[in-house]
Amino acid sequence: MPTIHEPAAITAEMKEAKKDYLDRHTPHVVAPAKVKKGEAFGVTVRMGQDYVHPDLPEHFIQSLQLFRGDKLLGSTTYAPGAATVGRETPSGFQQVTFTIALDAPATLSAISYCTMHGLWTSDPVKVEVE
Amino acid sequence: MPTIHEPAAITAEMKEAKKDYLDRHTPHVVAPAKVKKGEAFGVTVRMGQDYVHPDLPEHFIQSLQLFRGDKLLGSTTYAPGAATVGRETPSGFQQVTFTIALDAPATLSAISYCTMHGLWTSDPVKVEVE
Amino acid sequence: MPTIHEPAAITAEMKEAKKDYLDRHTPHVVAPAKVKKGEAFGVTVRMGQDYVHPDLPEHFIQSLQLFRGDKLLGSTTYAPGAATVGRETPSGFQQVTFTIALDAPATLSAISYCTMHGLWTSDPVKVEVE
Amino acid sequence: MPTIHEPAAITAEMKEAKKDYLDRHTPHVVAPAKVKKGEAFGVTVRMGQDYVHPDLPEHFIQSLQLFRGDKLLGSTTYAPGAATVGRETPSGFQQVTFTIALDAPATLSAISYCTMHGLWTSDPVKVEVE
Repeated sequence: MPTIHEPAAITAEMKEAKKDYLDRHTPHVVAPAKVKKGEAFGVTVRMGQDYVHPDLPEHFIQSLQLFRGDKLLGSTTYAPGAATVGRETPSGFQQVTFTIALDAPATLSAISYCTMHGLWTSDPVKVEVE
Repeated sequence: MPTIHEPAAITAEMKEAKKDYLDRHTPHVVAPAKVKKGEAFGVTVRMGQDYVHPDLPEHFIQSLQLFRGDKLLGSTTYAPGAATVGRETPSGFQQVTFTIALDAPATLSAISYCTMHGLWTSDPVKVEVE
Repeated sequence: MPTIHEPAAITAEMKEAKKDYLDRHTPHVVAPAKVKKGEAFGVTVRMGQDYVHPDLPEHFIQSLQLFRGDKLLGSTTYAPGAATVGRETPSGFQQVTFTIALDAPATLSAISYCTMHGLWTSDPVKVEVE
Repeated sequence: MPTIHEPAAITAEMKEAKKDYLDRHTPHVVAPAKVKKGEAFGVTVRMGQDYVHPDLPEHFIQSLQLFRGDKLLGSTTYAPGAATVGRETPSGFQQVTFTIALDAPATLSAISYCTMHGLWTSDPVKVEVE
């Protein structure tokens, strides 16, 4: 099957040595630590923490997907340059915010696809429910 | 071609008579009236203003797409119940927020797809650039 | 809403004058004229009859969608160069074959999206059921 | 990250014990063993060999994706019942045929997503080029 790059499988040395490459290819899930049962809230999937991924015709992030455990909640697809008017360095991090609700505590994660460097997954993020 | 329901083509009488049906099937684009050239900002595509669309296995919003003029900026796809833990009445409006940037004034619009009632388009929204 | 180019709205003169441009941007639905009730069969959505659309990073067909009346049956998304190893002139027409079944006569149509020239629809194709 | 069920990781005993469940959730790549360099050919991604997956609103195959190595070639998304007129037992295997070309030998594989049972991958299939 296609390689899926996973943060937990990358050593600290590697993370330091290939910092910008790894950072900009890793999706991050940004969600509240605790939410109210059944109430809608926003979850952002964002590429990179410190480095911005290019958005070039021959090298762009084609999709961002949000999962609750093994369940796909939403999947966003892009064409190259679509969101960044074709600059080599986009003016912001590529991100999408989904609106979801939870009935029980959940682990959220994301998968991204880069047209040059393939599939990448986020670290899991736990959300408590009160 | 498939019917694309368009707000401008629906009479005021019809809008009043089938208020909830029409409202919950119409995507709305929520964006700032003016943005800075080349700076990233959020654009939300949201189903309904006053009425919430169901999220049932046999009747759900499968996709939301954002366009700049004729150009597709992003497309989000859902599975039924994905974002609403299977309630008949979701706790919030179905919506997704894209991050985009503009170099010139633009007209944004959205297309949604309901698995029972087909394709719908938003009113256009103009965004100025300073 | 975004322009949707429709074959029926294009004059014969225009079709002759801009033959290759129009041909390669128009999706075609290829289906049997008659099928057996409830039996699976293949329906191909293909870009162009005589001219092949480019598959370049800055100009490619990003999606092909098949509809039965107003109902979306399947939607296929591509990244640039994905299916054609990056040649300027792909070796074949871009196409996808869906497997569907019908209980009653139906009208099938397709919508395609080109990253430079936007949304296009096919002529409708009727399929009888016996 | 979400679980990705992989045929190679499933024991022969398990395959026998849960034969129909495993078979109908596993995508298969059907491609020629050898193709001509640069010539277009069809590759089918099909769910199941002997057992047909249901296509019910609350349990359906939402997507089929074809990869060449780590590169995504095409991704097809479905709504429930879209291709099978809502029967519990569809009349045929869910499948999609992509048209691709190769310049060099390649390993093709597929990933599918079931709305109840998550992500599954195919066995890899090698295609020689002459």
